[in-house]
Amino acid sequence: MKKLPLSSEDLWVHHWIAALGRQPSAGIRYSLGHDCAVLSSFPKNLDLVLKTDAVVEGVHFTRSTPAPLAGRKALARGLSDFAAAGATPRAALITIGCPNPRSARRIRQAYQGLSRLAKKFHLPIVGGETVRTRQLLLSISLLGTVPQKTSPSRSGAKPGDILFVTGKLGGSWPHNHLSFTPRLAEGQWLVRHKFPSAMLDLSDGLGADLPRLARSSRIGFTIHPNQIPLSPRATPRLAFTQGEDYELLFSVPKKRISALLRQWPFSTQLSPIGTCLTQTQGYHTGGLPLRGYDHLR
Amino acid sequence: MKKLPLSSEDLWVHHWIAALGRQPSAGIRYSLGHDCAVLSSFPKNLDLVLKTDAVVEGVHFTRSTPAPLAGRKALARGLSDFAAAGATPRAALITIGCPNPRSARRIRQAYQGLSRLAKKFHLPIVGGETVRTRQLLLSISLLGTVPQKTSPSRSGAKPGDILFVTGKLGGSWPHNHLSFTPRLAEGQWLVRHKFPSAMLDLSDGLGADLPRLARSSRIGFTIHPNQIPLSPRATPRLAFTQGEDYELLFSVPKKRISALLRQWPFSTQLSPIGTCLTQTQGYHTGGLPLRGYDHLR
Repeated sequence: MKKLPLSSEDLWVHHWIAALGRQPSAGIRYSLGHDCAVLSSFPKNLDLVLKTDAVVEGVHFTRSTPAPLAGRKALARGLSDFAAAGATPRAALITIGCPNPRSARRIRQAYQGLSRLAKKFHLPIVGGETVRTRQLLLSISLLGTVPQKTSPSRSGAKPGDILFVTGKLGGSWPHNHLSFTPRLAEGQWLVRHKFPSAMLDLSDGLGADLPRLARSSRIGFTIHPNQIPLSPRATPRLAFTQGEDYELLFSVPKKRISALLRQWPFSTQLSPIGTCLTQTQGYHTGGLPLRGYDHLR
Repeated sequence: MKKLPLSSEDLWVHHWIAALGRQPSAGIRYSLGHDCAVLSSFPKNLDLVLKTDAVVEGVHFTRSTPAPLAGRKALARGLSDFAAAGATPRAALITIGCPNPRSARRIRQAYQGLSRLAKKFHLPIVGGETVRTRQLLLSISLLGTVPQKTSPSRSGAKPGDILFVTGKLGGSWPHNHLSFTPRLAEGQWLVRHKFPSAMLDLSDGLGADLPRLARSSRIGFTIHPNQIPLSPRATPRLAFTQGEDYELLFSVPKKRISALLRQWPFSTQLSPIGTCLTQTQGYHTGGLPLRGYDHLR
């Protein structure tokens, strides 16, 4: 019997499905190897959350970055945004752009790094796409859920609210930006208990992300530089300008602070770093610059 | 009052949200400008459908392709996969990779072309991402719905089923691959009336896509070359090898054929091109080559 030919695209799809390994299958009708992924729906009391994020060689990692860490970072960044939304990731799609699809080793390693992190969060990879590009690129799209009408935005902070950050800031390069753990558990807990009036994840540094929260919420703020929790060898200036900390920044109404501090169940450090003001009271940072990492500059 | 600084990324986000124009807002809690999009859930009798697809300059379009058409193609390809799944698109995320984010004209035009097609299908663009790449790249992720347990896969064709295609094949370059209308209405109708035992969209040509259907369904087939509906100046060989027709290929059980032909409500041409056989009966194409366009070759 004549065998049906496999195109190099078909072979490639087989190859990368193998690299991803066995995927969680609960609630999934069609997954890898189908044109579209099909999932059974989620309960009515959950909202759906969508996010896409991409990392590119030469921008978010270098040619010498081990491929498993590049793959890991591609997924971890999107999960960090999910953390800030209080969302639970339910399915991921991966797009990979690669200079030479026949030199498959680096790609396979990237998939493996990504897949390992996905497994840690019981997140199935349900589909993907491979294209030819001049530099390695990994793009992730995530579907998730959050209890109905609970996901905080950037715009709910009020004058008088206290600003908190999780973990330690600054010093993300050369290592932490490749190995950080997205604060999914912390973000989900905060949202479930309705503590944050506004929340986002610190991807570009306090100096860039804090103005985003303030602009959306139409507030001013005062930051106490000596209360910023710092990584070893980091300075408050680094915490403001370096970016890639992937910690959570959020505001909490004053009357909820003692409950938050009492109930916080994580070993992750929780630090009040300032207070929300009215816009006319302005922006006070003790001299730290209101600019962060700007990857399009 | 001191003004808060906007990073070039912030400015860019403002810029491209403007280029996309007003978006449908029903059922959408957070959309463009938020870290994650948040949507209210869909009824329990609908399955969720996910797809990601990317187009790259130098592969799927050229440097001289008008940007609105490149943007349009990026979305149209994903919608063609949705058509084959019988799915209704509900939300789209766009990732754009661009060599120089400050030369914004081409990018804005790409968004506009994409946005125009999205509006035609009442599809809201709810989020996106911009990264720096060495060549223009547009990646789309789609969330949609399909009536529970109705979406066909490639694997349901049975010996004796008749193979159909929509529209006309061949001759997709230089124009049709940039201007085709995804067969969403036809795909949704076929699935709602449970005609296809298997379905996919013809992106790489019959010579590549037919073996995919046959391999998944573990069937053989016979194709009648003189029954293949051809675009002006196309040949059966072009229909097999050229790709980018974005028509639907599907199998229908014999006893359902007369109902299909009687009820088909579209002006789109509907053509029986062959019959499914057992695997041992083999693959018969009247001499046409079982290979299509292979973009990774």
